[in-house]
Amino acid sequence: MTEGSTDREAGSRYGKGRMEAFSDGVVAIAITLLVLELTPPALESGSVWRALLEQWPEYLAYLVSFASIGAAWVAHAAVTDHIAEVDAVFFRLNLLLLFFVSVLPFPTGMIGAYLHDADAERVAITIYGVNLLAISATMSVLWRYAVAERLIHGDRPEERVRAVTAKLNPSLAVYAVAIAIGLAAPTAAVVLYLAIAVFLLIPFRAIVRHGRGRPER
Amino acid sequence: MTEGSTDREAGSRYGKGRMEAFSDGVVAIAITLLVLELTPPALESGSVWRALLEQWPEYLAYLVSFASIGAAWVAHAAVTDHIAEVDAVFFRLNLLLLFFVSVLPFPTGMIGAYLHDADAERVAITIYGVNLLAISATMSVLWRYAVAERLIHGDRPEERVRAVTAKLNPSLAVYAVAIAIGLAAPTAAVVLYLAIAVFLLIPFRAIVRHGRGRPER
Amino acid sequence: MTEGSTDREAGSRYGKGRMEAFSDGVVAIAITLLVLELTPPALESGSVWRALLEQWPEYLAYLVSFASIGAAWVAHAAVTDHIAEVDAVFFRLNLLLLFFVSVLPFPTGMIGAYLHDADAERVAITIYGVNLLAISATMSVLWRYAVAERLIHGDRPEERVRAVTAKLNPSLAVYAVAIAIGLAAPTAAVVLYLAIAVFLLIPFRAIVRHGRGRPER
Amino acid sequence: MTEGSTDREAGSRYGKGRMEAFSDGVVAIAITLLVLELTPPALESGSVWRALLEQWPEYLAYLVSFASIGAAWVAHAAVTDHIAEVDAVFFRLNLLLLFFVSVLPFPTGMIGAYLHDADAERVAITIYGVNLLAISATMSVLWRYAVAERLIHGDRPEERVRAVTAKLNPSLAVYAVAIAIGLAAPTAAVVLYLAIAVFLLIPFRAIVRHGRGRPER
Repeated sequence: MTEGSTDREAGSRYGKGRMEAFSDGVVAIAITLLVLELTPPALESGSVWRALLEQWPEYLAYLVSFASIGAAWVAHAAVTDHIAEVDAVFFRLNLLLLFFVSVLPFPTGMIGAYLHDADAERVAITIYGVNLLAISATMSVLWRYAVAERLIHGDRPEERVRAVTAKLNPSLAVYAVAIAIGLAAPTAAVVLYLAIAVFLLIPFRAIVRHGRGRPER
Repeated sequence: MTEGSTDREAGSRYGKGRMEAFSDGVVAIAITLLVLELTPPALESGSVWRALLEQWPEYLAYLVSFASIGAAWVAHAAVTDHIAEVDAVFFRLNLLLLFFVSVLPFPTGMIGAYLHDADAERVAITIYGVNLLAISATMSVLWRYAVAERLIHGDRPEERVRAVTAKLNPSLAVYAVAIAIGLAAPTAAVVLYLAIAVFLLIPFRAIVRHGRGRPER
Repeated sequence: MTEGSTDREAGSRYGKGRMEAFSDGVVAIAITLLVLELTPPALESGSVWRALLEQWPEYLAYLVSFASIGAAWVAHAAVTDHIAEVDAVFFRLNLLLLFFVSVLPFPTGMIGAYLHDADAERVAITIYGVNLLAISATMSVLWRYAVAERLIHGDRPEERVRAVTAKLNPSLAVYAVAIAIGLAAPTAAVVLYLAIAVFLLIPFRAIVRHGRGRPER
Repeated sequence: MTEGSTDREAGSRYGKGRMEAFSDGVVAIAITLLVLELTPPALESGSVWRALLEQWPEYLAYLVSFASIGAAWVAHAAVTDHIAEVDAVFFRLNLLLLFFVSVLPFPTGMIGAYLHDADAERVAITIYGVNLLAISATMSVLWRYAVAERLIHGDRPEERVRAVTAKLNPSLAVYAVAIAIGLAAPTAAVVLYLAIAVFLLIPFRAIVRHGRGRPER
């Protein structure tokens, strides 16, 4: 993992591989811990199916969190794929990103806990949206820092770098709009959060290329 | 991990190593988190051993989940072992597979929670079976996609590729049958799920080769 | 991780690196999840320090489990360090070992839960000892299988291979004795389990070499 | 991961990569498990925001633990970056470090659990501080051992080695002072712990270099 570290500039360059391994670990744990927020409903009366169905916002929140963390990981893999080396600041910004990713199970659990209280649910969904926005914003900052500090592989064409920037930016504005909508219609906001995550996960480029017929390798 | 990434086709090829590391993380966490669904029985009266024994379906569900996730990991290792590179679609299909693996502790916990309610237990076992089927089906889709898109190492003989396909497919049909059986006899279904996982885990090929006398290396 | 896999014998050789990564994941999670079994005592009356001190068997069990899993990981690192390749059977035996490691938080938690019931505590400590014995026994089987099937690096001198065997074996007998002692004196057994783990963790060889003066490098 | 292990000195050298992977795993899990100590407040009466705000010491403790484990990981990455090989003693000292890191969620949770009892909170914060001190002290011992045993890469200039020592040492004294302060003013101690972690995380060197104008690469 630290092969080739010998000629690194003193004090400022850490192993990119180590940062990837740690990030993969934290993101993998956060995405898997989400399941602990799902609890079998109490069987007070009536059918089990009904009891399960009544918990649908809990399942929806789980799904949105899974898709959002999944999208963040895909974006992180794309960002670090372009990066040749990481410096001390990148290392810490990445830690901040991991902070926002790993705290997400908390507001996810709040949505499940406050199902039956409209006011509390609105608060939970607002906090949840701010958390998603923070993940997205930190990812953007991480990428912009890498571009500004020229941590990018020298051989990557300018247009590909701009393509990553273009993919990361719009979600910020949409998250802000979704948070505002959530103040009036909380459930609509959660559906919007799911839409954003699904949008980020769809590999448009690959689909377009596929439609055009894929070149031989 | 990203060595050799320099000449990758723009935008569509991510690191296979990164996907393996993330998958190993999620599967390792899911298989280990299962233990949190095991709870020491309350000691109301009578002997401890009896209290423990009465929880046997909880332990059985734990065992089945451990074996099923273990079998899924072994299958995943076999699939990715044959794959030369991953593209954007493979990346996302893999995320879907990880979703079904990491949600499995939830129905596993439901079986333990609904021990003393026959109706609820049947529902829990049905959901559990559908989850296992979804893992198996996504694994099949992942493999078929890799074969169709020629992501396989060029040097793998056709018959080995067909052997993987042959190993992955039958479990789908058996899971479907087991789910149907479970509607009438839930416990029988759980035993069947265990049988499927154990079957997938037994290395028949190695045993046969061993019986014939293993060639010198 | 799978570099050099191209010329592997068809169907029987998986990546050793993948197995190590997965094992590290499961063992790291199991050892870290143990902390969830520690719960702050309820503050009913009297001093906090007393309430904490009364929970000492819970902390002892945590310590023993941490040291035992740590020792298992050190042993696993030593075993796989000597192994050149893994086959399908080794892969599954390793999964069995991971099963016994990852279930250990359950009997650990039982010891804490049954603190105030002598009978239940004895049962919990017996189950706990059997679990530790199972970890140790599976590790021995794993190593013996690797030796028998000549999965060991060709350049390792015979005496080093015998040294690993000698280190792994005695603990089996000691665990069996400790379990028997635990039927009469449960706490003594737990102290013995700690002694075994600490013994396995002490690097005698390094200390002896250090005492003799370490050769120049 | 174990490439090049062939010519290692018998019995005393394990893979550095394996130790890094395991450490990354444990630290990543510990930092992510912290979120399980956060619980949505019960909605007894009054506004949700107030209920959330009243839990601020719980959030503060979460933040301090995240920053402290993050700082420990950054320090660990710096330490192992300088190390050429690990021996059996380093391996075990590292396990001791992982012990103190992975137990931190317990005192973190105690602070949240004992919010409304001044005496208990003081005890919790004292234990918490001792845990942080133990992490920092073990990290120092690990580094000093590596320096004393000449496990450091031969090409690292003396001044860089001294720079790491200088960064690791002062925090020990400050932690000791903070623990003492905490006996009188618990909350002040927690704020101090946060200050230490943030101080350890700020990349002063990079900022200074940046201010001076960064050299071309």
